[in-house]
Amino acid sequence: MLIDGQKTTAIWPDLAGNGVFILDQTVLPHRVAPVLLRNLGDSARAIADMLVRGAPLIGVTAAYGVALAMREDASDAFLAKASAVLRATRPTAVNLQWALARMQEFLAPLPPAERAEAAFAKAEEMAAADIECNRSIGLHGLELIRAFQQKRPGPVRILTHCNAGWLATVDWGTATAPIYQAQAAGIELHVFVDETRPRNQGASLTAFELGQQGVPHTLIVDNAGGHLMQHGEIDLVIVGADRIAANGDVCNKIGTYLKALAAFDNKIPFYVAAPVSTFDAALAEGRLIPIEERSAREVTHMSGLTASGDVTEVLIAPPTTPARNPAFDVTPARLVSGIITEKGVFAANGAALAGLI
Amino acid sequence: MLIDGQKTTAIWPDLAGNGVFILDQTVLPHRVAPVLLRNLGDSARAIADMLVRGAPLIGVTAAYGVALAMREDASDAFLAKASAVLRATRPTAVNLQWALARMQEFLAPLPPAERAEAAFAKAEEMAAADIECNRSIGLHGLELIRAFQQKRPGPVRILTHCNAGWLATVDWGTATAPIYQAQAAGIELHVFVDETRPRNQGASLTAFELGQQGVPHTLIVDNAGGHLMQHGEIDLVIVGADRIAANGDVCNKIGTYLKALAAFDNKIPFYVAAPVSTFDAALAEGRLIPIEERSAREVTHMSGLTASGDVTEVLIAPPTTPARNPAFDVTPARLVSGIITEKGVFAANGAALAGLI
Repeated sequence: MLIDGQKTTAIWPDLAGNGVFILDQTVLPHRVAPVLLRNLGDSARAIADMLVRGAPLIGVTAAYGVALAMREDASDAFLAKASAVLRATRPTAVNLQWALARMQEFLAPLPPAERAEAAFAKAEEMAAADIECNRSIGLHGLELIRAFQQKRPGPVRILTHCNAGWLATVDWGTATAPIYQAQAAGIELHVFVDETRPRNQGASLTAFELGQQGVPHTLIVDNAGGHLMQHGEIDLVIVGADRIAANGDVCNKIGTYLKALAAFDNKIPFYVAAPVSTFDAALAEGRLIPIEERSAREVTHMSGLTASGDVTEVLIAPPTTPARNPAFDVTPARLVSGIITEKGVFAANGAALAGLI
Repeated sequence: MLIDGQKTTAIWPDLAGNGVFILDQTVLPHRVAPVLLRNLGDSARAIADMLVRGAPLIGVTAAYGVALAMREDASDAFLAKASAVLRATRPTAVNLQWALARMQEFLAPLPPAERAEAAFAKAEEMAAADIECNRSIGLHGLELIRAFQQKRPGPVRILTHCNAGWLATVDWGTATAPIYQAQAAGIELHVFVDETRPRNQGASLTAFELGQQGVPHTLIVDNAGGHLMQHGEIDLVIVGADRIAANGDVCNKIGTYLKALAAFDNKIPFYVAAPVSTFDAALAEGRLIPIEERSAREVTHMSGLTASGDVTEVLIAPPTTPARNPAFDVTPARLVSGIITEKGVFAANGAALAGLI
């Protein structure tokens, strides 16, 4: 997708061979700051500190992290350590575990001397596969959007939560892929962007992406989506997913469940866009998913740009106020209209999903 | 209630006779800053710029505003102008219109020379009545909380949205009155406080109030309440109201509807605490309530305390991102377990409420 009119992706190998570049997403939209990851430590910190976030991008970054680790030390012991260090960075994202398992499986049989180069090639292959996968999600989602275009005049109005955009993947995004495909197909669109507290990925990333791409959009607080749905201002909801259980329960950014309830109450279709790798066949139900609790500081403090152009953090509560910060919630399958994958759109139930998994 | 251990109220007449003091709620919790309102203009700005907010406090501030106006010019024409100016400050709050109608009705028959003094006495009477009303709401709500105390060991866990606390009234608050009464009755409590974007009245005001009062509490983002309910961490919800229709539909701070949906989905009682003056008998249904749209800047910017101790505003979205900012939403009566008033707890339906109105 585009930044300042230039085509880019969310992660790319350094042509000089020093490592892998990512964009520091903690300073977006205020700064476009590429960061070079040179080793395992850099990669783990980039994931843990959320310089990169979004399940698919976390997976690819972890794969590159293993490759960078193999440059440091290609022993079996260090391969195991790299997996363990990277796995511990974000407990909820299933793609992380999936990517690490694939790297481990692929590298373990190879002689250590061959591991670094092979790991890089594998990580690049995974990055390319992510792009292709998201492009396909977009094409399947495009057909859903097209159906709304024919229902009424004016733009198709889509609500999205958090950032399941191209910045959460290597390119295209998951929830945004249908939006970008619809834009490319000439369909008139308007996207309502949930701010997505506490980290504001909607306000800082999705609004940034859509603005750079020229997609008409409006930022709203997380509280406002239900009201807009009650007033007929939303045609459909598309969100991403961090993990999907075998029964179709969807674990995604905290607050997704509230939007799903509102969509259901107002008879508005609620779609989840996610690659098949997001499905966790071993997990019978969503309530079994461990939910990451993050720092209270993400709730009590907020980062933004001052009038003088500095990115700074401000305290928005009394200094001694305790806070809780669950990062994800689980939307029961009964509230999900369908799951848009690279293999097509599936109903959110065990029977429909069984073939996929 | 208490600030720094001292008893105070949210509005009080200047003993030197120069006007009326309020607390500037836009700088709470970072500064406790009393502001003297000297005339109609000061009063209107205090309401429009949300130095005071909360339906009951807006009503009492408007009453004092009329009294201050009568000091400037006690003519019929200026009385009408004062009402019009104050009415235009916040279109949604029915208490504002109710207070202005009462002042107008009371003052119109009086000779202009008597109006200023009479208006002050009337405003003070309305402030005292608000305190007594909220105390009664608290006592009725206390019985609901007591019922939960007996259901399980540990604290009764209450979720509240926005600030329907003593800072939204003259004293006690509406949604918080049952909490403060329960605290006084020795019931163990834990209050989950919704941050309440875009103006963060939960994080800045409710958390401040509860902290000052010594009520155990935890701040959460607006997105988190549904997740806590799914996990059995909330026993009941108590929110305030800005206007209640004849059929029991409740207009309150944006996002209330989402919490009501989640409470209903998880079989958690959802109570609204509001004085009878919040009922609008002329309004058949909630969807007829005009919803105030406030400035986009409240969404794109956030105010807080920097590390160096300044209260400053930061931009949290790209500089050109458009935003929408509906300030209230309507929770359908079907999602409301009951309405706690000074006259008792009523079911949210036309038949139950008919007698009240």
